[in-house]
Amino acid sequence: MAFTTRSEQRCFGGVQGFYTHASSSTKTDMKVGVYVPPDAKDAPVLYYLAGLTCTEETFAIKGGAQRLAAELGIVLVTLDTSPRGVSIPGDSDSWDFGVGAGFYVDATQAPWSTNYRMYSYVVDELPALIEAKFPVSQRRGIFGHSMGGHGALVIALRNQDRYQSVSAFAPIANPVAVPWGEKAFGNYLGPDRSVWEAYDASILMKAKPFPDTILVDQGESDQFLEKQLHPEAFEGTGQQLELRRHATYDHSYWFIQTFVEDHLRHHAKRLLK
Amino acid sequence: MAFTTRSEQRCFGGVQGFYTHASSSTKTDMKVGVYVPPDAKDAPVLYYLAGLTCTEETFAIKGGAQRLAAELGIVLVTLDTSPRGVSIPGDSDSWDFGVGAGFYVDATQAPWSTNYRMYSYVVDELPALIEAKFPVSQRRGIFGHSMGGHGALVIALRNQDRYQSVSAFAPIANPVAVPWGEKAFGNYLGPDRSVWEAYDASILMKAKPFPDTILVDQGESDQFLEKQLHPEAFEGTGQQLELRRHATYDHSYWFIQTFVEDHLRHHAKRLLK
Repeated sequence: MAFTTRSEQRCFGGVQGFYTHASSSTKTDMKVGVYVPPDAKDAPVLYYLAGLTCTEETFAIKGGAQRLAAELGIVLVTLDTSPRGVSIPGDSDSWDFGVGAGFYVDATQAPWSTNYRMYSYVVDELPALIEAKFPVSQRRGIFGHSMGGHGALVIALRNQDRYQSVSAFAPIANPVAVPWGEKAFGNYLGPDRSVWEAYDASILMKAKPFPDTILVDQGESDQFLEKQLHPEAFEGTGQQLELRRHATYDHSYWFIQTFVEDHLRHHAKRLLK
Repeated sequence: MAFTTRSEQRCFGGVQGFYTHASSSTKTDMKVGVYVPPDAKDAPVLYYLAGLTCTEETFAIKGGAQRLAAELGIVLVTLDTSPRGVSIPGDSDSWDFGVGAGFYVDATQAPWSTNYRMYSYVVDELPALIEAKFPVSQRRGIFGHSMGGHGALVIALRNQDRYQSVSAFAPIANPVAVPWGEKAFGNYLGPDRSVWEAYDASILMKAKPFPDTILVDQGESDQFLEKQLHPEAFEGTGQQLELRRHATYDHSYWFIQTFVEDHLRHHAKRLLK
């Protein structure tokens, strides 16, 4: 399953590339961004899952992370947020469901279950493809923003043998209890709410905490904090957590780029040891 | 002449804002981006002029400079590349002339001369507005990319009392002798080529070099290097110059963000002393 190169450009001594590949999980072409630092050899890989409406380009362009990835010797992989190019009725009616809003689940409900299999794509398919093509090791970190923070946490918590580090910016902490999660899970996973719990980081933390500190940054002026994010749900779960609340920061990539260095160093400390 | 705030967001402890204001130079509304570092007071201002097709958002989003502006205590101002919203026949027929391609000149030829007055806008009008609204000093640096590198160099060379520092990424070094410049100057300034020389950095350097080192970065895999940029025109002009050629780098913001720290430090050294 080959990658088609859309572009490869020099950046901080390494290469920022954008690729397309056929995905067996989503039965669509998927786009990824990969930053390979200078002289990479057996480099660990840090996967970034983006939030609603974003693409594989968003963090690559707005995150400011390549400088640090180059310095630390980490490969950065950025992903799209849903399958694209399959026209399913209702997939583009709203910005928080369907296209751009895969929620990193394996949908079980028609008509979504054929293509909306982002969980399997992220956990199994993409790492195998990346590890076959790029000069990387099998040490993996994962992080993300908002819907992607939810995805990163859920994926690391459910696959603790596959990820050595995890962090999140303004994640949807308790999706089963907020409007974004209820809408997405109801459609992708069906009405049985007990099924949703396999995709809820706060609930997963209670069952089996990640065996290392999770770094979470949250802006206190985040426009989605009160209604959708609920980072307080992490507290009391037993998870070892560094939850930092930042006065006056919002939900944007201006917030993310401010704290991205701390995240890269958090992962480097765990991936490079 | 008030600024209308479109957005203000926390970033690296400071504020990234985007504003609109009525311009007497262009007789249009103009958009600017302003990054104010934490605790700014009498801060110097570094103006960034963007290249063809770009806007006031491009460098703000893709340049990765706020981190350094915050650290160094410099206000960053990013500009649009032409007037917008006036419909002049021919202003949108090509990407290298008209909208998004003001070339930082004061047009003398109809129908451009009413609105396409970016030189006066950058040199006189905008600094006065910025210095009235933001907590800044009258110490000014200027830099830019491609068409904006041309603009920054020309403006600093012609206004050596108003700018303490200047640098450029992949500037159009000798616009009178390349297709981009010939097209723009012919239309904006008319057929008399001797008039064009007031907007050609290489020619201006020969007449009166800038009284400090100018930093110029150029990628050797830049797709416009051979036909449009000609940095070799700077050599032998008598200008004190640090011209760095970087193998494998192209014309993009992946190139710019790689070297932006050196530019911020170049300006800081001169603006903060």
